[in-house]
Amino acid sequence: MSRLSLSDADKQARDWFAETTQSLGCKVTVDAMGNQFAVRPGTQDGNPVYAGSHLDTQPTGGRYDGILGVCAGVEMLKTLNDNWVETSFPVGVVNWTNEEGARFPKSMVSSGVWAESIPLEDAHNLKSVIPANDTATMKSELERIGYLGSTPASHKSTPMAAHFELHIEQGPILEAENRRIGVVRGVQSYKWFTVTVRGKDSHTGATQFRHRADALLTASKMILASHKIAHRHSALASSGILTLKPGSTNTVPGFVQFSLDIRSPKNETVDEVEAECKEAFKQIAAGADVDSGTAPSERQCSVEWKTDFVSPATFFHDDCIKCVQEAGNDLCGHGEVKDLDIGSWGKAMTSGAGHDSVYTSKRFPTSMIFVPCRDGVSHNPAEYSSPEACADGANVLMGAVLRYDKLRSARGH
Amino acid sequence: MSRLSLSDADKQARDWFAETTQSLGCKVTVDAMGNQFAVRPGTQDGNPVYAGSHLDTQPTGGRYDGILGVCAGVEMLKTLNDNWVETSFPVGVVNWTNEEGARFPKSMVSSGVWAESIPLEDAHNLKSVIPANDTATMKSELERIGYLGSTPASHKSTPMAAHFELHIEQGPILEAENRRIGVVRGVQSYKWFTVTVRGKDSHTGATQFRHRADALLTASKMILASHKIAHRHSALASSGILTLKPGSTNTVPGFVQFSLDIRSPKNETVDEVEAECKEAFKQIAAGADVDSGTAPSERQCSVEWKTDFVSPATFFHDDCIKCVQEAGNDLCGHGEVKDLDIGSWGKAMTSGAGHDSVYTSKRFPTSMIFVPCRDGVSHNPAEYSSPEACADGANVLMGAVLRYDKLRSARGH
Repeated sequence: MSRLSLSDADKQARDWFAETTQSLGCKVTVDAMGNQFAVRPGTQDGNPVYAGSHLDTQPTGGRYDGILGVCAGVEMLKTLNDNWVETSFPVGVVNWTNEEGARFPKSMVSSGVWAESIPLEDAHNLKSVIPANDTATMKSELERIGYLGSTPASHKSTPMAAHFELHIEQGPILEAENRRIGVVRGVQSYKWFTVTVRGKDSHTGATQFRHRADALLTASKMILASHKIAHRHSALASSGILTLKPGSTNTVPGFVQFSLDIRSPKNETVDEVEAECKEAFKQIAAGADVDSGTAPSERQCSVEWKTDFVSPATFFHDDCIKCVQEAGNDLCGHGEVKDLDIGSWGKAMTSGAGHDSVYTSKRFPTSMIFVPCRDGVSHNPAEYSSPEACADGANVLMGAVLRYDKLRSARGH
Repeated sequence: MSRLSLSDADKQARDWFAETTQSLGCKVTVDAMGNQFAVRPGTQDGNPVYAGSHLDTQPTGGRYDGILGVCAGVEMLKTLNDNWVETSFPVGVVNWTNEEGARFPKSMVSSGVWAESIPLEDAHNLKSVIPANDTATMKSELERIGYLGSTPASHKSTPMAAHFELHIEQGPILEAENRRIGVVRGVQSYKWFTVTVRGKDSHTGATQFRHRADALLTASKMILASHKIAHRHSALASSGILTLKPGSTNTVPGFVQFSLDIRSPKNETVDEVEAECKEAFKQIAAGADVDSGTAPSERQCSVEWKTDFVSPATFFHDDCIKCVQEAGNDLCGHGEVKDLDIGSWGKAMTSGAGHDSVYTSKRFPTSMIFVPCRDGVSHNPAEYSSPEACADGANVLMGAVLRYDKLRSARGH
């Protein structure tokens, strides 16, 4: 499916979220980034414990990424109402804007503004990159669909007691190991770059290899090199965007630009892969790669790096992790599990992908819950989690929220 | 410069060509592909000897590729007039439409229709690929700018005695060897392909290498492999276009399409490189490439080839080659050169690029003349040939046309 952030389709989903949560007795606040906070009162006042995720998707995304977390939050509200449950403190559900960074090219941008890690103005000025030639900005689209809220986008205006996020794993591990729940302890470190290779346009038929500065051949070598370097470090390197000029079958391209996404659970590993790629790309551009079988050339390419995004490794809060663990054990355990152990039903994990929980964890206790998805496929229309897996996740989410409420009640705040 | 075929800028150049040649006493015929034939009468009737090339350019092209050949032809007409030269048979200049194949993606398409190698309807239905989202076809653009001529586009309607084409070398050999004239004996064989790689979109952070079917990494390996295979055969392989989907920094692309242009003086070598690439790409897509250091994966990509264009090796006509050789020797030689030898002023060459002369040579005696260009650069705004090199080329072009006229006169037809 395709529900790009702040599109007409996104407005529809937002309207549904507001109407549904209001009909369940919530007060809904919209902030200056369009983040929607639906809060169900407790028996006493205090910062709410939130279940949160996002309703936007990639251009060819799936029906679970983000959406499951919000829908399970709404389901929690229904279940609490249906069973006349009163919590000690308020609980709520939050829908974060443009988590994907697909339409406006900064992922988790609105939880980032809320955490005061990203300036509001930078976020408002982000330009749409999909559809092509769109001139809209985040601010103009928030205004257009009526979701530029009057509440400041800040953790000071909409504070939390804690944030729990249910999400599909987006990887194949839980399925492969036959585990029902991933107890997520943190998010891996990652950096995004734009790499620009400049060579020289020349005729494909009349220019011998030794006279070429072929930007696409050079970029191809770089993409392969980044893959090998990351593999050597048990890290990840990926290129998802590549554009070139001039773009003609019989012209060797003189200009190529590609994205590079480097990830590892450790910040130091990401830095090492980055440093090795920088050195390797320099060598490749200069034609000093000694890969046997390639033709030497008198002409060199130049290479330039731009850092687009840095997300250091995130470590979630022990209290939240424990609530998830206990809720998982309640649902799936067989009594044989010791305190802080995870039974065969679950697995302690580090998230490979970034999530809004990265930013909420900077301000308030946070953790995440993963459920298996088929073949580990995500960011793809074939994305699928079984109804049983979704129910498991929703149960653990509600269990964790209620346990956290009990924890606060016990400590009196 | 950018003068895309059948654009407003191209119409201006065409109008200039028609007005100028008419003012020099020519009759101008326009055929159904917009090819313009300007003919200066001889003392007797007969098929004209043409100087021909093209006025369209690549999107970021140079000021000499094609343009020099047409302008030198016009200069020839002026020189003949200024010096009251009467030729035995008519001589002319032809401006071929869309030689570059940049806007309408089939190079030399209009000389191809004229040679009856390409069906008129296929050519008329070619869709513009530049600018993006243009819906124009060759036919609609010919109509729009007033160049859909009433004469059939066929060598039967506009026959020739011979065709000579002056062109910049588009390579560095003449400059490097300090030669003034390339005596072109033929054009190398080439084939154009579109290669489609299908993998699976997946999340860059949550998908380990062993679970990926990364179409861009796979395409990068293929581009590098095609380069190595071509190099091993002393042939050329080049990729000038690459597009991918979905195009997001944090999504491993599941779809990549790229152009592949394979060239060699020999048809068999092109076929060998094609066959080896097909085998190598199959292995790479299946993950069977044993290139050390890349991560293995359980998932495969698929690969598909489409042949877009085949241009077998072309061998020009001995009579025409001899006329060029003698004209070159007249201009640059020192008398010490034996018949059919080329002195230190020139070099026998095979053209790396395709030209309209490939198609004219299928129907009538043809050959080409090359002059040096700086650094061998072409298809680039930096393209440059010195005024002296252009003058050399124009002199040899006119000399060859006049010698061919003399040859016909001697044999009486």
